[in-house]
Parts: sequence; C-alpha cells; structure tokens
Amino acid sequence: MTSPTPPGRARARDLGIQPGRLPTGRLNAITDIPGVLVGQRTLIEGDDVRTGVTAVLPHGGNLYQHKVAGAVHVGNGFGKTAGSIQVGELGTIETPIVLTNTLSVAAGIGGVITWTLAQPGNEQVSSINALVGETNDSGLNDIRGRHVTEADVVAAIEAAISGPVEEGAVGAGTGTSAFGWKGGIGTSSRLVGDRVVGVLVQTNYGGVLRIDGVPIAPELTPDTPGADSADGSCMIIIGTDASIAARSLERIAARAVFALARTGSSYSHGSGDIAVAFSTADTAAPAEVAVGGSALSPLFEATLDATEEAVYNSLFAATTVTGFQATRRPAIPLDAVRKILARRSGPGMHRAP
Amino acid sequence: MTSPTPPGRARARDLGIQPGRLPTGRLNAITDIPGVLVGQRTLIEGDDVRTGVTAVLPHGGNLYQHKVAGAVHVGNGFGKTAGSIQVGELGTIETPIVLTNTLSVAAGIGGVITWTLAQPGNEQVSSINALVGETNDSGLNDIRGRHVTEADVVAAIEAAISGPVEEGAVGAGTGTSAFGWKGGIGTSSRLVGDRVVGVLVQTNYGGVLRIDGVPIAPELTPDTPGADSADGSCMIIIGTDASIAARSLERIAARAVFALARTGSSYSHGSGDIAVAFSTADTAAPAEVAVGGSALSPLFEATLDATEEAVYNSLFAATTVTGFQATRRPAIPLDAVRKILARRSGPGMHRAP
Amino acid sequence: MTSPTPPGRARARDLGIQPGRLPTGRLNAITDIPGVLVGQRTLIEGDDVRTGVTAVLPHGGNLYQHKVAGAVHVGNGFGKTAGSIQVGELGTIETPIVLTNTLSVAAGIGGVITWTLAQPGNEQVSSINALVGETNDSGLNDIRGRHVTEADVVAAIEAAISGPVEEGAVGAGTGTSAFGWKGGIGTSSRLVGDRVVGVLVQTNYGGVLRIDGVPIAPELTPDTPGADSADGSCMIIIGTDASIAARSLERIAARAVFALARTGSSYSHGSGDIAVAFSTADTAAPAEVAVGGSALSPLFEATLDATEEAVYNSLFAATTVTGFQATRRPAIPLDAVRKILARRSGPGMHRAP
Amino acid sequence: MTSPTPPGRARARDLGIQPGRLPTGRLNAITDIPGVLVGQRTLIEGDDVRTGVTAVLPHGGNLYQHKVAGAVHVGNGFGKTAGSIQVGELGTIETPIVLTNTLSVAAGIGGVITWTLAQPGNEQVSSINALVGETNDSGLNDIRGRHVTEADVVAAIEAAISGPVEEGAVGAGTGTSAFGWKGGIGTSSRLVGDRVVGVLVQTNYGGVLRIDGVPIAPELTPDTPGADSADGSCMIIIGTDASIAARSLERIAARAVFALARTGSSYSHGSGDIAVAFSTADTAAPAEVAVGGSALSPLFEATLDATEEAVYNSLFAATTVTGFQATRRPAIPLDAVRKILARRSGPGMHRAP
Repeated sequence: MTSPTPPGRARARDLGIQPGRLPTGRLNAITDIPGVLVGQRTLIEGDDVRTGVTAVLPHGGNLYQHKVAGAVHVGNGFGKTAGSIQVGELGTIETPIVLTNTLSVAAGIGGVITWTLAQPGNEQVSSINALVGETNDSGLNDIRGRHVTEADVVAAIEAAISGPVEEGAVGAGTGTSAFGWKGGIGTSSRLVGDRVVGVLVQTNYGGVLRIDGVPIAPELTPDTPGADSADGSCMIIIGTDASIAARSLERIAARAVFALARTGSSYSHGSGDIAVAFSTADTAAPAEVAVGGSALSPLFEATLDATEEAVYNSLFAATTVTGFQATRRPAIPLDAVRKILARRSGPGMHRAP
Repeated sequence: MTSPTPPGRARARDLGIQPGRLPTGRLNAITDIPGVLVGQRTLIEGDDVRTGVTAVLPHGGNLYQHKVAGAVHVGNGFGKTAGSIQVGELGTIETPIVLTNTLSVAAGIGGVITWTLAQPGNEQVSSINALVGETNDSGLNDIRGRHVTEADVVAAIEAAISGPVEEGAVGAGTGTSAFGWKGGIGTSSRLVGDRVVGVLVQTNYGGVLRIDGVPIAPELTPDTPGADSADGSCMIIIGTDASIAARSLERIAARAVFALARTGSSYSHGSGDIAVAFSTADTAAPAEVAVGGSALSPLFEATLDATEEAVYNSLFAATTVTGFQATRRPAIPLDAVRKILARRSGPGMHRAP
Repeated sequence: MTSPTPPGRARARDLGIQPGRLPTGRLNAITDIPGVLVGQRTLIEGDDVRTGVTAVLPHGGNLYQHKVAGAVHVGNGFGKTAGSIQVGELGTIETPIVLTNTLSVAAGIGGVITWTLAQPGNEQVSSINALVGETNDSGLNDIRGRHVTEADVVAAIEAAISGPVEEGAVGAGTGTSAFGWKGGIGTSSRLVGDRVVGVLVQTNYGGVLRIDGVPIAPELTPDTPGADSADGSCMIIIGTDASIAARSLERIAARAVFALARTGSSYSHGSGDIAVAFSTADTAAPAEVAVGGSALSPLFEATLDATEEAVYNSLFAATTVTGFQATRRPAIPLDAVRKILARRSGPGMHRAP
Repeated sequence: MTSPTPPGRARARDLGIQPGRLPTGRLNAITDIPGVLVGQRTLIEGDDVRTGVTAVLPHGGNLYQHKVAGAVHVGNGFGKTAGSIQVGELGTIETPIVLTNTLSVAAGIGGVITWTLAQPGNEQVSSINALVGETNDSGLNDIRGRHVTEADVVAAIEAAISGPVEEGAVGAGTGTSAFGWKGGIGTSSRLVGDRVVGVLVQTNYGGVLRIDGVPIAPELTPDTPGADSADGSCMIIIGTDASIAARSLERIAARAVFALARTGSSYSHGSGDIAVAFSTADTAAPAEVAVGGSALSPLFEATLDATEEAVYNSLFAATTVTGFQATRRPAIPLDAVRKILARRSGPGMHRAP
C-alpha cells in the first residue's frame, strides 16, 4: 500500500505523537471501520480555485434503503450544515455525508440527491435528507465563484473507497486553514475491544495551537498576514461499527467537539464546530444490543483521542498552498515542531501512558 | 386593489370564520407587517410540473447587512429545512426565507446565495446562511424532475412585493395537499395594539380536518385515491414588527406549530412541521426595548389565531389541481363547508367571543 | 368496582364526548397499561390548604434497578420540573413520576429519594434522578406554607395501585384551576392494536375553552374574580406498553402538548406545559423491536386524543373548591355544557368518525 | 486580607501556571465581578460527613425582583441540576445558584425557596425557580445520610460575601474528588477590557490529568483504591459584568465545558458536566447594548482560560480528606507537580504567550 501522505509531510505518529492509551486501527483512519468509504474531489484551477469535496459513506450499499443510526452535535453553530433537523428527529442518516465549502452546500445537496435518485432501488424515492457540512475556505479559494458543481459532488461520492485516506490539502480541505497554517483533511482511529471508532476532520479553525499539550503558537507562528485569525470552523465526522443508538451517537459527537480544546481551539464566535456521528452496526447486525451506560466511556475516550490526532494529521499532511488573491498558507514546518516537542519533553513524553 | 383570491374561491372570513378575538391587519396577510414582502414563482408545465417557490422578505433592503432577529422551531423534524443551525446559534436571519419542494432545497439555497452575493454592498461577503424550507409536493408534482431552478428562486425573490398575497395553489403551494384536499399557500394577520403579527403557511399535511372546531372530515372527504394520507408537512413563517428577541421568537414559532392541532393535524411521523419567526423591529428601531414576560402572551394568541386562519385560507383559496401521473387534488367545496358550519352552529358561532 | 368519579360529576364519555377514532382501554385510564400504578395524597386542611401529590409508577417493582425508557418534552418552560436533564441525556426514568405544587418540588424530590433509598436492593445507591413536576395551585392553596411534606410524597407513592384513578380535585390537582373552573387530575387511554397509550394530566391552565371543538368560553364562563387568567400550566404524563425508544417517546410527549390546543389552551407566557412519556416495554421485553417510523403515527394519534379527553375528565370530575383566602373555583356545570354541546351539534356529532 | 488558601497549599499562579494571555482580576476569583457574592457551608462531622454547600449570588439585592440574564449548558447530562427548564425558556436567573451533593438537591431547592420567600419585597411571591447543581461526593461522604439541611443552604446563602473565595475542600467541594486526588471548589477570573469574567468550579471528575498541557497522570497518580475512576462530574458557574444576552451566555457556558478537555477530562458516561452562566449587567445597566458577534470571542477565551485555572486551583488548594468508610483522598502533592512541570518545560513555559 502506498502512503497517501505527501512527500516531506507526515502523520502525527511519525513525530511520536499518539494521544491516549487506546490502539489505533490498521490504517489509523476512518476507513478502519469495516465498510466505510471515503471519496474526495480536489479542485485546483488557475490561481484562485482551491476547494473541493470530501464524502464519507457509512457503507457502500444503498444508504437510503439501508439507513444508519446517526446524530449531529452542534458545538458552535456559526455554520450551514444541512440535514441536521431530520437526523435530530429520526436518528438516522440516509445519504453520504458530504463536506465542502460554505457557499457550495447547495451543490453538495444537489449532488447527494442526484446520486441517491440514481441508485438502483430508489426509483420511487421522493424525499431525501442530504447531510452536507462545510467550512469557509475563502482565505485561499475564490469561494464566491462557487466552483464546486453537483458533478464534483457526485464524482467524490463515486470515488469513495476503503483503504488509506488522503490527508491535508485535499478534497474539502484543499483551501482550509488552521491556526494560521494550512489545514485540511485529517483522520485517525481507535480500537475499543474488537470495535473501531474512526474520525475524519476538516480543519479550518484557530486559537493558540498546542500539540500533545505542548504550546506551539507563541514560539512557532506563520508569518503570513491574516494568519492570526482565530475564526473558522471544524467539521468532524465520527463513525463506529459498535452498535450505538442515535442518542448515544450524539454524546459521542459532543466529545469530538470537546477534543478541539486539547489542540488549543478558541471556539470563537465565528466558528462552526459541528460533529456528525454514525454507527454502521444497525445495518450489519440489527438484533445486536446497543452499547449503553458505562460501556460508552471507552468509546468517548476513543473519540476524544482520535479527533485530537486527526487534527494533527490534517496539519502535518497539509502542504503549503497559494491561492485566491495570492494568499499563501504555509504548511506547518515539521522540523520546527519536532524540535519544540523534543526540547520541551522529558523521557517518555508523547507516549501513551 | 384586485383581490388575489381565485374566482369561486374565498377566504375564511368570507365564510364567517374568524378565529380568536383579536382584529386582523388591513389585508389580513403577512404583508400587513410594514416592510415585509412576499414573492412567488408558480411552475405549471405540461402534465407533470406543479411546483414553485414562495419567498418572504422581512424587509426590502439588504438583509445580509441588516439582519433581523429570528428563530426556527421544529415541531416535527421530518423535514429538510436548511439554515436552522446558524439561526439557532445567533438568533438572526440574513436572507429571504424561501419555501419550495423537498428536492429543490438545493435550488433554494443556490438562488438565495446568488441573489445575496449580487446585492450592492455584499461584494466582500463569503458566508451566507440561506434559510430554505420545504414540503413534499410529489403527490401532484414530478418532484424527482427537480424543475425548480436557482433562477426560479431568484425570480421569486425579485418579484417580492407588499400588498395582497396570492393564496392557494401558487408558489411553493402549487403542488401541495392538505387533508386530502388541495392545499397551498395561506396567510393571515392579527393586530396586538399597534403591532402586527403575520403568518404565512405552506400546507401539505393531514389528519381529521376541523374548521373553527367543527369536524369536517367524517362528513366531507375527498373521493380521490391516496387522499386519506395523514402524512405531510406544514411550513409556517411568522413575522412581527413588535420588538422581539430571538429567544421569544422561538416561543412564538412554537405556538404556530401548536395551532395546527386546532385544524385537526395528526402531526404524523412523516410530517415536517417547522416554523420560522422573525421580528423586523431590530432594524427599524434598535434601541426599542424588546417585548418580554406576560406582554408576550397576546403575541402568542395572535400567532395561534393567525396560523389557524392561514391554514383555512390556504384550503379555501386553493383550486383543484391535476398533475403528475394524472393525480387530482380537488379544491375543498366551499358550499359544502358552509352547510356543515351553518347546520352545526348555533347563533353567534364562528364569531369572535 | 366502584366508580371513582364524585357524585354529580362525570367523565367525558358520559357526555357523549369521545375524541378520535381509537377505542379506549377498559378503564379509560393510564392504569390500563399493564403494571402502571397511580397513587395520590390529597391535602385539605383548614381553610387554606388545598394541595397534594399524584405519583405515577411505570411499574410496581424496583424502578431504580429496572429503569424504563423515558423522555421529557418542554412545550413551554415556565416550570420547575426536576430531573429533566438526566432523562434527556440517558433516555431513562428510574423513579416514580411525582406531581405536586410549585413550591413543593423539594418535598417531591426528597420523598422520591427517601422511598428509593429504602427499596430493597438499593442499599448501595448513591445517585437518584427524581422526576418531579408541578403546577402552581396558589389560587386555592396556601402555597407559601409548603404544606406538602416528604412523608406525603412517600405516602402517595406507597398508595399507588392499579385500577380506576380518582380524577378532579384530588392529589396534585386538589388546588389547581383550568379555564377559570376547578381543574385537577384527569386520565384517559387509547388502544393501538394490542398496546395501550395512557395519559394523566394535572390541569392548571387557561385560554378560551373548547370542548370537542365547540366553544364553551364565550357563553359559559365562571363568575369568580381572577378566573379569566389564561396563565398557568399543564403537566402531562404519557405511558405505553408499546416498545418505544426514548427518542420516539419525546415525539409522543410533544403530541401531548400539541393536544392542549384542541381544548383552547392559550399557551401563555406563564405556562409550564411539560410532558413526560415512558414505555414499560423495555423491562418487560428488552429484545422486542422498538416501534419506529410510520408505525409511530397511531401512537401519536392516541396521545393527541387521550390527552384531550384527559383534560375534559379533569374538568368534569372536579368539584367546586373554596380555599386560600376564601377563593372559590366552581366546578364546570355539566348541564350547561351538555346544553351547549347539544344545541350546537348536528346528529352524529361528538361521535368517533 | 488573609489568604484563604490553606497552609501548605497553593493556587495555580503560585506554581507559575497562568493559562492564556488575558490578565486576571484583582482576586483572580468570581468575586472580582462587582456585586457577586459567594457563601459556603462546610459540613465535617464525625467520620462520615464530608459535604457542604456553595452559593453564588449574582448580586446582593433581591434576586427575585431583580433577575439576571442566565443560561444553563449541559455538556453531559448525568446530573440532577434543578431549575434548568425555566432558565432555558426565559433566560433569567432569579435565585442564588446553589451547589451541593447529589442527594441534597431537595435541601438546596428548599433552602433557596425558604430564603427567597423571606426576602423583603417577596411577600406575594408564589413561584420560585431555584437553581441548584450538584456532584456526587459519595466517595468521601455518607451521601445517603443526606446531612445537608435547608438550614445549611440558607446559612451558605446568608454567609455570602465579596472578597477572596475559599478553595479546595470546602462548601460543596468538601467531599469531592478529581482525577483520584482531592478536588473541590476553585475559582479564577479574567479581564476583558474593563469587564470581568469569573468562574467557580466544583470538581468531581476524572480522566488523565494534564496541567498546563503537561501530562501528570502517568507519572504522578494517587495510590488510593478507587482513585482511578474517571467517572464523576463538574459543575461550573460563570459570571460576568459584561452585558450579555441569555443566548450568548449559553455559548459562554458551553466554552466552560469545553475547557475541561484541557485538563484531561474523560467526559465519561457518568459525568454531569453542567455550566451555569449569568450576566450582572442587566440589572446594573439595562439600557446597555448587549455584547454580540465577534466581540464575544474574547469573553469565550476568558471563559476557557479561567475555567482551566479554576480547576487547577480546586486541586492545589484542596487538602487531604479522610471520610466515609475511612476512604482517603490525598491532596495532589505540589512539589511533585512542580518537578514535573519544571523538568518537562523549556524556558518561558507556563507563561502567557
């Protein structure tokens, strides 16, 4: 398997960072959940188009006919995520979960509907709740140009595969920024017994960056104008093959939002920090008893740890991007990060306890 | 002023029905609120296209630059309304409120964004929270054809005017049904002191119809197949020029949902009963003290009464429509309704107490 | 079985009122649900004490060890119901559901905890989520005297039995008022296939009274001062032996609040309209598949109808009460109600369609 | 002024820890907010009683007659906080905010009502929404004995003063534990321009302790049985004299919950992580324009930082307590903490950036 990490870039584990004490899945990705697929469409055109689409499919079958349990949790609601009302009422997700930029939610919904209407078995379907999230990539992307089309969204969905997930400046993360650095797509996973919790993030937020608890921001900051803005958003998708009722999935989604605090998030007024959680188990094993009570706590822990690591992966895999109006968002320099972590850590740091 | 009620059809007051004890505004319409505009685009094409768009503008200026206080209340969330998360977080509405069919929410969002981006003064805007509601008109409309375009949505917004509002089988109500009859757009208003509460509904729901408390359904029912379905949805938009904080607007929006019970709503599983409320006062008089406490009760009463009457208006103004796959939804026969009301009422009935 | 209805008073069915089309259970009471128990403690002391406690037990076993699925829905939150946060998070109820007056919620919680701590099998329990609702009976009761004690609450719980439920001016309804008349406790039930939906209300609210759709208020109104206040609250408890997940129970609880609109509720600012729903099926048959989707709609219908009827029962069973500061709340005169219903109805009215 | 910190104990600043970049108020306490009072009642009796009451008064006047804007945010709802429904509906707080143990919420409500009824000017009050939070101190306290009385609650309220706040094993923190160490009451504040944000916490939760980002837990852990439980809760009270509407106060309260992630909270299933926020400005200057939009972000930042520091203060000020069934919760050893912080930090660490 070829690593999808760009040359010169890395994942958090490559820097010795491994939040928490739970083991990761094989790929340390949301695709460690059996059946989960990720598809991305990266739009880089001319000087100004730096955007895209990332689609997460809870399974590769007919999602409308075989819905999964799901929940949306709003940490901060300065966001345009569509589809949350019905998920909140019914506790089910019936489409791919699509991420894109703020002004392309319409294309996201349209693409999801186009794809769903066309799926065999859906010939009579007349009501589809498209679940589409977004962050604002206007720093690097000509967002007002609305360059994402329904066709791009369909293409992302149709490209969805299992296996390693491309991270950094790809898909819906092509034009996003985090802590003044280039952000993007990141993923991570944890094992809880024989079950997987997987997370995928679209990082586009700010604050005072900490990595594994170590303050990065005062010492290492990007030197580009506007990079100190704490505003922005983070979309988080959490999946699991544990059998989890929608009520508990919302609790899991909340933990994903909480995890951003570990990274130094400022949770500013303008952030849309929204998490979507789903369980694939309902379709795979409907009779299975749902996980509840204290048995949920390890899944909460897995969510906290995997979200934290997914954020680091989004930063470490991202490459420098120059885009709209010649704005430049540098990749966070990994050597400098390594140095800060090394100098400020004693023996055994950055290791699971 | 020419009446916008179709020939042979009527409004509730024409049948002597006047819910509650508060007076109506001059037009008995949401446009009685100073500055509020309504625009509609009706799509009737060939045998199968029976759909459209209804847009409510809290004011005729730049809504993005001059947001209004707003709230969304979900009575039953089997619906795809977009934009609710941000309204819930910030308590503001920054676009026209657009209603259309379930599979055209993307066109709704797209049209709202196109229109907003193009407004003078919005040249730097890169984040727009389009507020778009829907009900499912697949009974009469080829909904899977997605015939509403962004251009239709822009056209509806640009057509928005004050004055009388067309009711019945128009705009977003072109293809909807209610209680097995043809439903559609209805509106009504109430005066609370010198302030107006106005309501506009898109009726597409069912149950056991009551009019002014009198059961209609067992005696008078449509004879068309599939007409007994209680499923469906009702979108409700409530506006006021009273100065109301977003928190209180959500309470007002809840009363609009409650009012559907008076009409016999079954609030079935498949209904998306969602209400949007706004106050125009924030822009008009920002220093004005918001209405709170017991002073809200008359506004609640106005909302209950105007919503009930708007539903009747949507039914009474609607004309028979034949559409997709030759499905026919008859207009409720007004003479039969009159007879039932007359026979079953004593002196002084259907009059405000 | 002796009727628990006071002499000269009646139930809605005695007046020919039978909302909806579903059959009732045998007793037309919440106790039609197998295993559900109701206990009441009525406090009438001297001139000023007119209050009490009503306890609903989802089953007669150890509720803490055998929790039931549950939900709380807040229609209007001017209320002091305790225990809602944990029910909202976990979807379970672990104590009797106790109703009392506004200033006696502490006694309610204390009594529930005393009783729960003492149950065999709970020797190690250190965390109890007491679910206690209230309405304000200060019109007839010396509420500031806080005459309800923890012992009264324990007594109500220990008195809980199956069988007919006393209605009207008893238990937590001893001092409440509705539409200016004496309100109180009412109950009703509906059958949905072989399952029961049962409702118990504590009516203490106002508006413009309608019975079975017929306006009562303008013609028949109490002649006592202060009786026209629309303020007040309604607590509603809904139970079922259908297997319903907590998420769907909240939807059921919402319908109970909606049903108040049929009776003319004003849902005024000062009302605490709060509904608690539970399912006994989780303990009886944990493997049973929960009811979901469209199969919920008949349960919604049952809830709407039974709540409406329970309100009428609370009014019709209530006897005139004179209490605090010589305030008098008359029982609604049944003959006058009969006359209004008869005169204003055609043949076949007040019958299920 | 004598320091309220126990001999041999410290505050976070004494160890060089100063989260964030904003300055603290004069006392670095919630009482830095002009007018805010804190009163505590510590119950240490015999071998088994280790509990108490902490009361925060938004102002020293008649709170019922002069309510403050307020909000409750539930991070995780395994908790019994009373009063949240009405605060959620109306956005106002009308009583002292009282913290105590889980089984003493009834005493908390009762005490608040007793005190409120007795306040001059409240002679006609018949409806009081007591706001009472709790955590479970059964590890050290005979919680089933319910040793907190209404009189204790009244005493705590009446003892409320401005000035330094006792921290650690006092008041409602007398018997609580955090991360296996003795937890308790902690407080901190931040200045945002000329306004104050103050926080008070009752720590009783767990996870993997981090202090200022540095992992403490793997190297330094208590050697007492049961100390590794991650379960438990954290109540957080946030006040400010900035003029903040209730809607924005809930956003502030959410940030307080997020801040727990910085300290290593596991947010486990059994935690009741609930935050209450209030603004004193409504009473002091009703005409003042509320802070909104991006101007809220510094207040969010202040909340995050002050909550984090308040948690450290609760741990550092707490003294070792032995209680119920001879259970012992050691104070976290400050020298060991200092060593870990020093060894693992480079120059300039633990300083505001």
